[in-house]
Amino acid sequence: MSSNIIEFYFDFASPFAYLAAQKVEDLGERLDYDVIWKPMLLSASFKQTGGQPLTSVPLKGEYSIHDMQRMARYMKIPFKLPTPFPIMTTAVARIFYWMEASEHSQEHASTFAKSALKAYFAENRNIGDHEVLRQLVKECGVDPDEAIGAINDDKYKNMLRTITEDAVSRGVFGSPFFFVNGEPFWGSDRIWMMKKWIEEGGW
Amino acid sequence: MSSNIIEFYFDFASPFAYLAAQKVEDLGERLDYDVIWKPMLLSASFKQTGGQPLTSVPLKGEYSIHDMQRMARYMKIPFKLPTPFPIMTTAVARIFYWMEASEHSQEHASTFAKSALKAYFAENRNIGDHEVLRQLVKECGVDPDEAIGAINDDKYKNMLRTITEDAVSRGVFGSPFFFVNGEPFWGSDRIWMMKKWIEEGGW
Repeated sequence: MSSNIIEFYFDFASPFAYLAAQKVEDLGERLDYDVIWKPMLLSASFKQTGGQPLTSVPLKGEYSIHDMQRMARYMKIPFKLPTPFPIMTTAVARIFYWMEASEHSQEHASTFAKSALKAYFAENRNIGDHEVLRQLVKECGVDPDEAIGAINDDKYKNMLRTITEDAVSRGVFGSPFFFVNGEPFWGSDRIWMMKKWIEEGGW
Repeated sequence: MSSNIIEFYFDFASPFAYLAAQKVEDLGERLDYDVIWKPMLLSASFKQTGGQPLTSVPLKGEYSIHDMQRMARYMKIPFKLPTPFPIMTTAVARIFYWMEASEHSQEHASTFAKSALKAYFAENRNIGDHEVLRQLVKECGVDPDEAIGAINDDKYKNMLRTITEDAVSRGVFGSPFFFVNGEPFWGSDRIWMMKKWIEEGGW
């Protein structure tokens, strides 16, 4: 365990979080930073900022769809804007925290997070649907009944609420949003800058 | 004159346009693209998107100030968020179009644009103030009385209005916003992507 950390805040319904998820662990490994996955509910930020889901903003919405498709092609990552989009991501995030907290390791949880993002943004599987979540959990080799049970468990409800509130109080207004030993970076397109920041010790 | 163009839409009150202005001409020169400066009024886009000046958005505002200062340090460009900020940029934009349209060349106009952005974001000179504009025009070696007269000339009023409406109809929602032979790119932090796009012929 390194003492250096990259906190990775994201909403499971964020296309740019899906793109960032492909890169951030590589970055952490190469530079010996631990990546801490922190799924949250971006709707809580939107209440503060007056924001709304990116793709539904006039003008910006059209560009953002073009941009995420273009960025995915550039990164050579399969991507298809799913339908329905966006979706409620409360259940999938609670399952993540259940996996992280239970006998299952942090590693299992991040594997689950990656496969959930991929399922939604590359395979058009609705990760708001409990049946899809059950399959995904199973694919990670974990008991699906327990996982689905965690969705209504106060412990994980509170955990997600706390982490979301914490994110908002730390200024998280979009997804993905990173803190590199506390230094904030917004956007999947700032991973290069995080790398420079770490390598050069800030500037 | 190259047949390849980079259209550079921006509002004179945009800190990230100031940062981009330092880079975009280099890019054009290196890759043989003509850079066409297109100052506009971003407030017209905000009417469509429900947007507001970046720094006044809760959470996002604080981050954006941190980010522009950090980006300027990274680029080694002098930068100081001016007061007052933002300002009305109607007058400075109309003078730009007057310079571009009159016997003065396009080259003069972009020199004026660069010095106006620098005056505002590096020297804390209020480019909404006619006296400051008069000095800037003079520093470009152009008659300040004629320039100031252009601010209330219907020709340049219409020109700015038309270009702003055109920008909005083409989807410009932020500043800077570029079209590389028609391909849209938003943000000073996407110049690397424009370069790749040109070099690789898109993807």
